Amino acid sequence: MQKTFELVTQDRESKARRGRLITTHGFVDTPAFMPIGTQGSVKAVSPRELREMNAQIILGNTYHLFVRPGLEVIKHFGGLHDFISWDGPILTDSGGFQIFSLVKLRKITEEGVEFQNHIDGSRAFISPEIAMEIQAALGSDIAMVLDECIPYPCEYDYAAQSAELTTRWAKRCREWKRRNADSMLFGIVQGGTFENLRRASAQAVVELDFDGYAVGGVSVGEPEEEMTRAVESAEQFLPMDKPRYAMGLGTPPQMLQMIARGMDMFDCVLPTRLARNGTAFTAAGTLNLKNAEFALDKRAIEENCACPACREFTRGYIRHLIKSEEILGLRLITLHNLHFYLNLMSRARSEIESGAFDQFRKAFVAGYKTRDATIVE
Amino acid sequence: MQKTFELVTQDRESKARRGRLITTHGFVDTPAFMPIGTQGSVKAVSPRELREMNAQIILGNTYHLFVRPGLEVIKHFGGLHDFISWDGPILTDSGGFQIFSLVKLRKITEEGVEFQNHIDGSRAFISPEIAMEIQAALGSDIAMVLDECIPYPCEYDYAAQSAELTTRWAKRCREWKRRNADSMLFGIVQGGTFENLRRASAQAVVELDFDGYAVGGVSVGEPEEEMTRAVESAEQFLPMDKPRYAMGLGTPPQMLQMIARGMDMFDCVLPTRLARNGTAFTAAGTLNLKNAEFALDKRAIEENCACPACREFTRGYIRHLIKSEEILGLRLITLHNLHFYLNLMSRARSEIESGAFDQFRKAFVAGYKTRDATIVE
Repeated sequence: MQKTFELVTQDRESKARRGRLITTHGFVDTPAFMPIGTQGSVKAVSPRELREMNAQIILGNTYHLFVRPGLEVIKHFGGLHDFISWDGPILTDSGGFQIFSLVKLRKITEEGVEFQNHIDGSRAFISPEIAMEIQAALGSDIAMVLDECIPYPCEYDYAAQSAELTTRWAKRCREWKRRNADSMLFGIVQGGTFENLRRASAQAVVELDFDGYAVGGVSVGEPEEEMTRAVESAEQFLPMDKPRYAMGLGTPPQMLQMIARGMDMFDCVLPTRLARNGTAFTAAGTLNLKNAEFALDKRAIEENCACPACREFTRGYIRHLIKSEEILGLRLITLHNLHFYLNLMSRARSEIESGAFDQFRKAFVAGYKTRDATIVE
Repeated sequence: MQKTFELVTQDRESKARRGRLITTHGFVDTPAFMPIGTQGSVKAVSPRELREMNAQIILGNTYHLFVRPGLEVIKHFGGLHDFISWDGPILTDSGGFQIFSLVKLRKITEEGVEFQNHIDGSRAFISPEIAMEIQAALGSDIAMVLDECIPYPCEYDYAAQSAELTTRWAKRCREWKRRNADSMLFGIVQGGTFENLRRASAQAVVELDFDGYAVGGVSVGEPEEEMTRAVESAEQFLPMDKPRYAMGLGTPPQMLQMIARGMDMFDCVLPTRLARNGTAFTAAGTLNLKNAEFALDKRAIEENCACPACREFTRGYIRHLIKSEEILGLRLITLHNLHFYLNLMSRARSEIESGAFDQFRKAFVAGYKTRDATIVE
């Protein structure tokens, strides 16, 4: 079997790892951030812009694509890569998260989950095998097992039963994949905020032998300490030679903290979602560009940033665009924010290589304000 | 005084002209289409994308910019070019059209027009001199005189009085400009749908000696024949050695018809506005990409089109984006539509140069359907 992950370097002072995923559509250097292309488009951004900001992999949401335009349309166009004109790697989720967060009417059984979609209410059924078939039809480079993503907070008994169901589903996904396809498949550790459930889930999932391991059910509203503990509880059981993916994370400091705890891959709606609301990321924290203080500000969003927004445009102009509801405004902030996230991963990789990651992480976290901050220059 | 317009060639079979505007920010080859940057942004498009599609000039709306972000902000940033990062020529309208179309409360006197803006209702007053001052502060390469744009239909007496007022205002603009600034200034012919008023207005405005002449108050809801007659009535009095601008026009066939009648410059919201509704321009007419017939269509919007949308994406994918309300969808159609308009002008210029314009115009008009059309391939 083809090797799908190389561990290049490990940090001495933390669990941070510098690695490389090997997919049929190219390499992905880790730690990696994956921009989210929910409905077949990273919101407001073109594939060319993604390439220009050195995005190496994007995420596609199986549930959204399954509901619209539907699998037959995407198959007709030769799979997701051709449909959306993205020739780099694509990771697809299983649809589980959306079924458990977006859909109101659903029924979970041992066999799978029946639900009414949120667009036209029509009924559909997804089993672990169907989730695999859909992702194979999409042509994803990395598929995810179908899992149940429990809410926060959640009773212990339900969390325990759910984590076990996810493991049984993972086994069926693994079996389907062995028979049918050769893309990568990642298992998912669940178990809510309960350390022993996380440990048990990690051990059971690792036993099934996947190409990589995700920690799911984090960043669902729990306090940051609980999130960290959930990741730590799972991580100690994950094999060193496989990539680890912290699902749905996070803020810039959270990503660095999770890299220090041995995580390799991240995806998060924050850079694109907050951009549409006028919020830009900087090393000193977020800026709400709607604020009046930026009206006459001739500086770029962030000094020395090489993104297309910062190379050409001022905060004052971008503020005007956002206040005037001009699409170019949210486009520019989206480009900046994605560039910021991708660049942070690039920086993390080079700091791991040079042995200075932990120092960099501590300085970054200390300098980052979670609320609007006055930029220190 | 610097020469601001060169007439390169004239068509033998029509009044079509191939010319060149000379502005402080560069040349503009005519016939020219000017994408509209209403609020300091051509909607959904970046300056880089405009340069890449060879847009040579854009239009800025004085009224919108005056209301938001306001003149002090734009002055602070060194004028409109620097504020929006567009280093090519900019034509600004006088604000008159918006005051007469967007604003509900206004009072016209000999002195000027008092109005409450449509954003926060605050009161402002614009005289011909103030319209000149604002456009000078914006730093526009081509300024327009303040005019009253009458609605369609309009009583003869009102149209006559209004055209005379516009001429008296034009005279004051001309005088202000002689004293104060050296950018170009265009006069505007009004007179509604009345041929004798159009003739009188043209003669009076030409007597004032502007750098160019616009036909205003067309494309305001009148039948196409009336629009054509209004332009023809004015055109015969316009000097050959000055550029002529048909304001607010038009559909692709209308632009070619107006080029054949001696017009050189156009601006129109159609390519950007219709794009946001899913409508794309082609040589065979418009396509509504929301229609189900395009769901599985693997063709580009238009075969052999060199725009960024047609080079990379299918109708089926763009339809999916529009149906899913993804911003990339309207971005791609906007790029295609602007490219189509600019390319049509480029084609018109080369056909005039080679002496085949009238043949091209007739064939294009005959092949273009004003409703959704099945593309002839």
